[in-house]
Amino acid sequence: MDAQHRFSEPEREAVYRAIALRRDTRHFVPGQVLPEAQLLRLLQAFHQAPSVGLMQPWRLLRIRDAALRERLAALVEAERQTTAAVLGERGAEFLRLKVEGLRDCAELLALVLPPDDGTVFGRRTLPREMALCSAGCAVQNLWLAARAEHLGLGWVSMFEPQPLAELLRLPEGAQALGLLCLGPVERFYEAPMLEQQGWRQGRRLDEMLMDNFWKNESDGN
Amino acid sequence: MDAQHRFSEPEREAVYRAIALRRDTRHFVPGQVLPEAQLLRLLQAFHQAPSVGLMQPWRLLRIRDAALRERLAALVEAERQTTAAVLGERGAEFLRLKVEGLRDCAELLALVLPPDDGTVFGRRTLPREMALCSAGCAVQNLWLAARAEHLGLGWVSMFEPQPLAELLRLPEGAQALGLLCLGPVERFYEAPMLEQQGWRQGRRLDEMLMDNFWKNESDGN
Repeated sequence: MDAQHRFSEPEREAVYRAIALRRDTRHFVPGQVLPEAQLLRLLQAFHQAPSVGLMQPWRLLRIRDAALRERLAALVEAERQTTAAVLGERGAEFLRLKVEGLRDCAELLALVLPPDDGTVFGRRTLPREMALCSAGCAVQNLWLAARAEHLGLGWVSMFEPQPLAELLRLPEGAQALGLLCLGPVERFYEAPMLEQQGWRQGRRLDEMLMDNFWKNESDGN
Repeated sequence: MDAQHRFSEPEREAVYRAIALRRDTRHFVPGQVLPEAQLLRLLQAFHQAPSVGLMQPWRLLRIRDAALRERLAALVEAERQTTAAVLGERGAEFLRLKVEGLRDCAELLALVLPPDDGTVFGRRTLPREMALCSAGCAVQNLWLAARAEHLGLGWVSMFEPQPLAELLRLPEGAQALGLLCLGPVERFYEAPMLEQQGWRQGRRLDEMLMDNFWKNESDGN
């Protein structure tokens, strides 16, 4: 592989298309199995992420035990009910949304931030923030690779961390960040599901950009 | 654009190649300017990232003021010296590494986590973690799009947050996460620069994977 390789226009467009068409996915075709070679490609993409100081602060627990998957799904369901209660007047609307596909997805992976390894390089001042951002980069790689393989990925973050840590037997200092649902889908959402369902609309790019200094968002920037 | 679009094998390979060839970059060709249309494509890729609850917890300050860029570079240099002192016996080796390209890169963008907007969806229990992971996803999109455009990106996280917040006039509750250096490069590193320079070697994928439950890394898993 030539590391200096330039991307042709169709190749560049493929990268942009994966970015544009990637969706956080809750609807999977049940009962599917991913070929091991395909799963390995996807996990290698995950692991090729950048990380601050090369700390690679990501671990994946592949949930193969059906009973464990069921317990994880129950934990997510409990948090879904708690979230609905906290949401108050929008709670009923929230409960009508499909927010996870834990039982149906072909592969379920628990994303865990390992105990801090003490890396100082690039993270003397913001150690936890940099570890979390690096883990996010790894999942985004997995997401885009999955989309290119015509697979959906859903990042489920509705859970109480402590009981989840107990179920996964995490050591002190480790932090579960997500339950990643991966597998074949009937179709990809045309837009983020929360937009399609009228839950919330995303803001435009130009609202995210400022010149040089922060400008108060209420200034109508 | 057909959201159901399947990726052809060459398209899929292009996505994997961008993931494999992306590098955290410190060496830029000085004095370059990015065409505005290209910068806009890149920023749109950034903004197409997923985010928990569709909160889009990312803001970019485009540093166009040369004096401000110089002050940011000085802040990073101060932290580089502090890091070297903290590293003790590896401090001198650390100081020989090139760790940032703030003065040379075509575009300098400050990545800022905005004040929390109170989103509950998917982040009742881990609100800050989920915001940080989402910001990481956005930068990874930018990184891959940049690689496909034959541009380098470096995420510089060596700074004291408080003086940086003052320089950027950030409001209470906002958190600067990085100074993103973007622009043309002479070449891409064949491997992560920290590996090439013998600072640290990355671990293998199989060391990151476990079945069902956490297994102590000292168990020789």
